[in-house]
Amino acid sequence: MDFTVSTLGEPSVQSPISLSTIKGDKIFNFVSEAEKILLSVSLKAFNEHNGAPASLEKAGPRAHIFFDPTKSTAAIVTCGGLCPGINNVIRSLVMGLHYFYGVQRILGIPYGYEGLIPEYGHGFIDLVPDKVKDIHEFGGTILGSSRGGQNVSDMVDTLENNNIDILFAIGGDGTLKGANAIGEEIKKRGLKISVVGIPKTIDNDIDIIDKSFGFETAFDVASPIVKDAHNEATGAYNGISIVKLMGRDSGFIAASVAISIPVVNFVLIPEMKFDLQGDDGFLNALEARLDLKHHAVIVVAEGAGQDLFDKDQSEVKDASGNIQHSDIGLLLKDKIKDHFDSKDKRVVIKYIDPSYIIRSAPANASDSVFCNRLAYQALHGAMAGKTCFVVGVVNGQFVYLPIPAVTQKRKKIDLEGEFWFAALQSTGQPFVME
Amino acid sequence: MDFTVSTLGEPSVQSPISLSTIKGDKIFNFVSEAEKILLSVSLKAFNEHNGAPASLEKAGPRAHIFFDPTKSTAAIVTCGGLCPGINNVIRSLVMGLHYFYGVQRILGIPYGYEGLIPEYGHGFIDLVPDKVKDIHEFGGTILGSSRGGQNVSDMVDTLENNNIDILFAIGGDGTLKGANAIGEEIKKRGLKISVVGIPKTIDNDIDIIDKSFGFETAFDVASPIVKDAHNEATGAYNGISIVKLMGRDSGFIAASVAISIPVVNFVLIPEMKFDLQGDDGFLNALEARLDLKHHAVIVVAEGAGQDLFDKDQSEVKDASGNIQHSDIGLLLKDKIKDHFDSKDKRVVIKYIDPSYIIRSAPANASDSVFCNRLAYQALHGAMAGKTCFVVGVVNGQFVYLPIPAVTQKRKKIDLEGEFWFAALQSTGQPFVME
Amino acid sequence: MDFTVSTLGEPSVQSPISLSTIKGDKIFNFVSEAEKILLSVSLKAFNEHNGAPASLEKAGPRAHIFFDPTKSTAAIVTCGGLCPGINNVIRSLVMGLHYFYGVQRILGIPYGYEGLIPEYGHGFIDLVPDKVKDIHEFGGTILGSSRGGQNVSDMVDTLENNNIDILFAIGGDGTLKGANAIGEEIKKRGLKISVVGIPKTIDNDIDIIDKSFGFETAFDVASPIVKDAHNEATGAYNGISIVKLMGRDSGFIAASVAISIPVVNFVLIPEMKFDLQGDDGFLNALEARLDLKHHAVIVVAEGAGQDLFDKDQSEVKDASGNIQHSDIGLLLKDKIKDHFDSKDKRVVIKYIDPSYIIRSAPANASDSVFCNRLAYQALHGAMAGKTCFVVGVVNGQFVYLPIPAVTQKRKKIDLEGEFWFAALQSTGQPFVME
Amino acid sequence: MDFTVSTLGEPSVQSPISLSTIKGDKIFNFVSEAEKILLSVSLKAFNEHNGAPASLEKAGPRAHIFFDPTKSTAAIVTCGGLCPGINNVIRSLVMGLHYFYGVQRILGIPYGYEGLIPEYGHGFIDLVPDKVKDIHEFGGTILGSSRGGQNVSDMVDTLENNNIDILFAIGGDGTLKGANAIGEEIKKRGLKISVVGIPKTIDNDIDIIDKSFGFETAFDVASPIVKDAHNEATGAYNGISIVKLMGRDSGFIAASVAISIPVVNFVLIPEMKFDLQGDDGFLNALEARLDLKHHAVIVVAEGAGQDLFDKDQSEVKDASGNIQHSDIGLLLKDKIKDHFDSKDKRVVIKYIDPSYIIRSAPANASDSVFCNRLAYQALHGAMAGKTCFVVGVVNGQFVYLPIPAVTQKRKKIDLEGEFWFAALQSTGQPFVME
Repeated sequence: MDFTVSTLGEPSVQSPISLSTIKGDKIFNFVSEAEKILLSVSLKAFNEHNGAPASLEKAGPRAHIFFDPTKSTAAIVTCGGLCPGINNVIRSLVMGLHYFYGVQRILGIPYGYEGLIPEYGHGFIDLVPDKVKDIHEFGGTILGSSRGGQNVSDMVDTLENNNIDILFAIGGDGTLKGANAIGEEIKKRGLKISVVGIPKTIDNDIDIIDKSFGFETAFDVASPIVKDAHNEATGAYNGISIVKLMGRDSGFIAASVAISIPVVNFVLIPEMKFDLQGDDGFLNALEARLDLKHHAVIVVAEGAGQDLFDKDQSEVKDASGNIQHSDIGLLLKDKIKDHFDSKDKRVVIKYIDPSYIIRSAPANASDSVFCNRLAYQALHGAMAGKTCFVVGVVNGQFVYLPIPAVTQKRKKIDLEGEFWFAALQSTGQPFVME
Repeated sequence: MDFTVSTLGEPSVQSPISLSTIKGDKIFNFVSEAEKILLSVSLKAFNEHNGAPASLEKAGPRAHIFFDPTKSTAAIVTCGGLCPGINNVIRSLVMGLHYFYGVQRILGIPYGYEGLIPEYGHGFIDLVPDKVKDIHEFGGTILGSSRGGQNVSDMVDTLENNNIDILFAIGGDGTLKGANAIGEEIKKRGLKISVVGIPKTIDNDIDIIDKSFGFETAFDVASPIVKDAHNEATGAYNGISIVKLMGRDSGFIAASVAISIPVVNFVLIPEMKFDLQGDDGFLNALEARLDLKHHAVIVVAEGAGQDLFDKDQSEVKDASGNIQHSDIGLLLKDKIKDHFDSKDKRVVIKYIDPSYIIRSAPANASDSVFCNRLAYQALHGAMAGKTCFVVGVVNGQFVYLPIPAVTQKRKKIDLEGEFWFAALQSTGQPFVME
Repeated sequence: MDFTVSTLGEPSVQSPISLSTIKGDKIFNFVSEAEKILLSVSLKAFNEHNGAPASLEKAGPRAHIFFDPTKSTAAIVTCGGLCPGINNVIRSLVMGLHYFYGVQRILGIPYGYEGLIPEYGHGFIDLVPDKVKDIHEFGGTILGSSRGGQNVSDMVDTLENNNIDILFAIGGDGTLKGANAIGEEIKKRGLKISVVGIPKTIDNDIDIIDKSFGFETAFDVASPIVKDAHNEATGAYNGISIVKLMGRDSGFIAASVAISIPVVNFVLIPEMKFDLQGDDGFLNALEARLDLKHHAVIVVAEGAGQDLFDKDQSEVKDASGNIQHSDIGLLLKDKIKDHFDSKDKRVVIKYIDPSYIIRSAPANASDSVFCNRLAYQALHGAMAGKTCFVVGVVNGQFVYLPIPAVTQKRKKIDLEGEFWFAALQSTGQPFVME
Repeated sequence: MDFTVSTLGEPSVQSPISLSTIKGDKIFNFVSEAEKILLSVSLKAFNEHNGAPASLEKAGPRAHIFFDPTKSTAAIVTCGGLCPGINNVIRSLVMGLHYFYGVQRILGIPYGYEGLIPEYGHGFIDLVPDKVKDIHEFGGTILGSSRGGQNVSDMVDTLENNNIDILFAIGGDGTLKGANAIGEEIKKRGLKISVVGIPKTIDNDIDIIDKSFGFETAFDVASPIVKDAHNEATGAYNGISIVKLMGRDSGFIAASVAISIPVVNFVLIPEMKFDLQGDDGFLNALEARLDLKHHAVIVVAEGAGQDLFDKDQSEVKDASGNIQHSDIGLLLKDKIKDHFDSKDKRVVIKYIDPSYIIRSAPANASDSVFCNRLAYQALHGAMAGKTCFVVGVVNGQFVYLPIPAVTQKRKKIDLEGEFWFAALQSTGQPFVME
């Protein structure tokens, strides 16, 4: 895979930030294009690469930038579902552009990509420090959002007509692909507009990068809810609580919660196939647990067990183009009830779906730190004239990556990796239920 | 109404608590039976009573008690749905019986009234200080619960066969009626067993008493969820969030949340009839709001708008004998969608039902204080030989009331009272929507 | 005591709020001046009053008001130390004045009474709905505060010169006395300016009223800190944690925390005299506890044990005129250390003073409800032309009281009352330690 | 540096865990000794190593282990100051040893290394699943702790006399050095006892490893306190809040809080020398800020500015052997007061020291996940017969490191690195104040 980031041209403007290029003077050094971060930290991978391991561009402020800050206009758009930390990112982009570089005109694009289509009549929002100074205290996005794409050519027209030099697009897989398409159209037209993707996926399923913002907050907010579910389960004889969490293709939130809060007895994720029926199936395992302790907590990612539904799911998609999942939580609830009814065992089942509560929470401290650092790195890359790139953290280091490098596939939990093994150890569930 | 509390007989045992009967010695005084609390604080009510206003028995430790503590056995049972604070009550009952009075044998009855029926095989749990010392940190009930009643005679048999002298029943309307029936059966048999009700209703709908434990925690926990709902609503163009909260017959939680978190635009409660359609109906009011601000938050109590459903609801009851409500939240979601679809206006609706998350939360500090004081008062009354009574707070004072005094009807919000007016002022919704 | 509230004159303007005067129409009724609330709920007190018990004026909107809202100017000032809920009160005053009555000009007075003295140059802040809509999310006061009084005549000059018709003063004992002095000066000058006190005291020590806003949040925020203190205490052999809480003259916060969080072993409050030394003194009681369990948690109100200091305290006052207390927490720490050193017993003492963390927290849900209702009642009284009054809740009802009725003495914990007995029951400490 | 971990001998016992050695079967694979993780992720570092970059041993369960689980005894000791997450680590060690490996005898050593010295008379605590199942909900350590070392030979005697095969020592720099000394003494005696260090430092200052447990919770808990400090600062004219946070040698917590909560205007850390006086000194910078906005928040790590004290600090050490710092918070408070007094400018200074509140908090979700994974890895390494090692995460991967590799120096913030630059960008403070 090619990890080279595109640029709009030679950065020839001296950066207005008073940094250093001297090691040892206790002042941060501009980052040079030569600094690279290894993609893999495994010694084996290294040995197999014969001295030329894959590496990524180190993020950071460049000594020379492409845009003249005082004459440049930046715009910010937020797309897709809510995720903790969006407002932190918006705030730090505005603060950084304004205070570090002196960018005077920063526009908020309302309601996602819709805001780039004049017909919707959403207008723009002027983003100045006073307007954004407290927004990090609030979940959601002050810009509003929408799902789904819009006509790429029309969106580029809007950028061009409004003299926008930099577009920051905060969103998930679909948004990033859209941003790349915008960037490609810009290249085709020979324009000098930088398009920057800031990966936002509460599911933490963007490929290559260590983690996406909002993910830690997500399982931080979910954890006490799972404790509540445990209280409900123990509050009734043969009490069973089912908590459905986000995770369309990847079970990171569900598995993290299961490791964090060890009252979880079963965690079901999209990556792990499981049977309901059969000697080794989930229902028998649940029954064994119930016979032993008379209560059980099940955490299930929304994308788990989709093969258990009869109808053809591949046709149903939401406005973002994501496959609409059948509700695995409700299916489990029904199947569990049927199973114990058929055995004449009483159970009390509680079903909890806290998705909106999690998505709309403000970022916790760790995510706040991450969002702010991410936004700073994004704007440094943009000012340097890079385009069609995302900013992310890989092996603990901030890097710039071409958008296509992270959108070719979703990041998934490795069923043979340490993380999933930790989840299995925490729950005590059978390694395999099929 | 008669507010006289029944007693098992003359309290002739000297209380083991070293209190005083002298005012001014800085030591708490035993409470005498002559101390009474006025039922109404209105001067008008007083004037109309011609000098004999209704009054209630003041709660507190009596100088002489009925039971010999060292030879007595107490039992605790928790019934119905979860509510914050149950474990605090259990803890303080055990600690108070053990440390203040020296009661050695305290039994936990598992899984509600089921636990008093030997056929269920639940056994008893020995409750000692070491077992309960940390339970106040956890929501739920360590004893487990169940809904619905059991055969009264069988339950009294169990009390008699196990030499139980005092039964504390923590539960709502149905549980209290059950406790009273147990008490009446005990009287019929000429037994000397005290039955004490500790009102537990997250809906805050027990009559006469100022408030029930867990209620404040309930809207404390619900409040940030309503903030989240606001984030979801503002996060989309014409975003509408519906939060369904507890409140079968009374809208105290919903209205409290609406006053607490002023982002709520509409609060719908069982006490207030409203129309969906029509010029003055809810949907038009919602549309006016949306046209103005492009987002709206609706808080609805589960028992609101039940007349809007076609089918005859009066037949469907749950295991506790409560009428099963049709889901007003889902109805609203559908009707709102239809309304705006018919007008070709796009809306994005999010529906949030956090009931279990609220019910299973641990008590906040204010409720913890309340639970502990309530439990202390309950056990002082029981030791004094009172029976078929509940402990509650009326006009800010702890009192003992005969169970029937509080179970004849549910407490409801006075639509002409200051509290509801405050909710209307906070939301800005029309005073009448019919 | 006289509980009659002063008025500026006959209220002759029709209230712009569309309320009702008919019982049973499901619309809130205007409150009439004839409605009164009993001061005492004790039957005994009632019998002793021979049919003329003390009663208070019921708060609420009047059908006729004194000020023409569209031509009136209101001002808000916040004085003294921070307390949770101030911003909620400010917000609801502004919202209510603006939306219920249509008052167009609302001024924020910056930095307490200083803001009424032109020489400080603080100016005024225009308060409009958009400026205050989110402030309830934040602790502190958006207006700023200061301690201490200012020249009364100068302050009245400022009110007069700026055409201010209503002054809301949010503050404690000193602030309320200052507000009353302003009101008296206004009367002397024959002006028609209403002065309203909204009692703010985190210590909950304003006389007569059930509680002051911010108090519940205070012990809600303090409670987990006391759990932390318990963790510190159990984390070391003979670990002792001392938590100093607010409570200059009254120990309500300390005692509430002790009841709420039963890990507290000793609670020391200003109302209770105690000795350090001696057989029955505190240090021996502490040693007995430590020998039993090897850890202890002590909660002490800042005003406790002031007689234990040598120097004459009565001379040292802070800018608000309150007596400056010597640090009882540090004294305890020293004396405890000396005591165990002298016995050659090792102890590990941790001292925690979380005052600022508590004072500056945002209001919890219960206090938010209270603040909003209180503010609504305050503005209804002001619009009706009442003056030199405070709004408060007595026996669960909102009332108007003349300021002097609540500033003659501080409310204190009754050492012979149920509340303190609950604290003793929770801690298990000796009833008397002298 | 040598990164080879010592072993007690050939692991010849088949692991009782049913894992796989086959890639692709969806079951976690045992980790082989050949798997290594690169120490540096910089491409430059790699190129300079000529194909032999430094690498670390990958953590995880081995197919063959050294100890026969059913015949082995493990012991756990917790030393030094409290830190969020200790109980999570204890819980997961006990659960893992018991359920994964079947270890029957697990001892808790009370009160740190003291517990290994019989003279203290602390005894041992039997650790079984039922005893530890809920402890992760609580901050602190259920084992208790103490500071400082004990006689190594005596401690090894205790291990030997009590047939302890594995010792898990949870603690910071001093504890780890102590553990290594114990391990060396064991080797000298030819015993087969494994000694495992689990790094615990709230300051996050253990070298090489990415982060230590509890650190994230620390700044998560500190963040709202800094918001409170901001409320206090804005609540007064020229209000200044000083928050002192942990950080003896390294300012990670202080800097993280400053990035997380952007109301911080100055962050002072041990790594950064700064002057108080002088044109470019801190006091002038503070005054400029105050003149601009009339409030300021300062976060200072306890080890910052130690050169500003007159007296010779190098002599004063606490029981753990750490240098006792003079209180920089109090020094700042005094110097700030003097500065503005001398200029006749009024300021209101609030000083907040929340250390104990932070140290004793329970772990947040992210730290809970980390603690549990860390504990699992620690016990896998121990069962495999490794000794004198610590478990940690490096470049996102769990590794085993010889204890001396991480105790030679403290990890510090790189003043020329991205993290500190982010802190400077967030605060807006001058890059250099000397």
